[in-house]
Amino acid sequence: MDLLEARRRFTEAPVARLATSRPDGRPHLVPVVFALVGDVVCTVIDHKPKSTKRLQRLENVRHDPRCTLLVDHYDDDWSGLWWTRADGEARILESPGSDHPGIRELVRRYPQYRRESPTGPLLEIRVRRWRWWAAS
Amino acid sequence: MDLLEARRRFTEAPVARLATSRPDGRPHLVPVVFALVGDVVCTVIDHKPKSTKRLQRLENVRHDPRCTLLVDHYDDDWSGLWWTRADGEARILESPGSDHPGIRELVRRYPQYRRESPTGPLLEIRVRRWRWWAAS
Repeated sequence: MDLLEARRRFTEAPVARLATSRPDGRPHLVPVVFALVGDVVCTVIDHKPKSTKRLQRLENVRHDPRCTLLVDHYDDDWSGLWWTRADGEARILESPGSDHPGIRELVRRYPQYRRESPTGPLLEIRVRRWRWWAAS
Repeated sequence: MDLLEARRRFTEAPVARLATSRPDGRPHLVPVVFALVGDVVCTVIDHKPKSTKRLQRLENVRHDPRCTLLVDHYDDDWSGLWWTRADGEARILESPGSDHPGIRELVRRYPQYRRESPTGPLLEIRVRRWRWWAAS
């Protein structure tokens, strides 16, 4: 697997896991739908039901923007295992607007967003480093 | 979804994602196969090919044992989405031995470990807090 293939597999996955650091230093982890625009991963706080409006992931990146995203593939045949990881820094756009390239790509990728376009906040995660692994 | 159901779904998943903190504070993320024994998640460094023997996850938990594990389910129908997260603290057992309950449960769960029993190091992650979410 090379960078191009690792990136391709990441891009095509419907879901990634976003790890951030809580203000007290503990790691925090949540699955996210996302879109990759250039080397920026975009993920948006949407209308899916949340237990609270004050989302931990936003509080975390305000405190420390460093984060990492993982896409992985599990297979009962372990020779088919692989993962791709994107390390980067996040910034928050409170009201990205429907013309934001990330919002446009999210709407293109997910039919759910066509019915109800997400308004934000949006997380823009600039990828600084790609890492990957494949069992074979 | 209640704690019992959240835990059941976590237990039955073949793979979880483990987030730890690097010594410089950046989050680190890797998929792991695992077994839950009581309230302890066990995952082992096994014979799957690695890019290095000096694994980042081990270095991280030696520096800061606080970690979190996520199991999530993606569905094109977003009303079927759910996740379960386990926050805890890890310790490393360099040579757990084949009688360790975690090794026994890993061997029971994964046929791959029956062919070649993992020798460790083993990560024992004591779960301090379960969190979960379901779209419906």
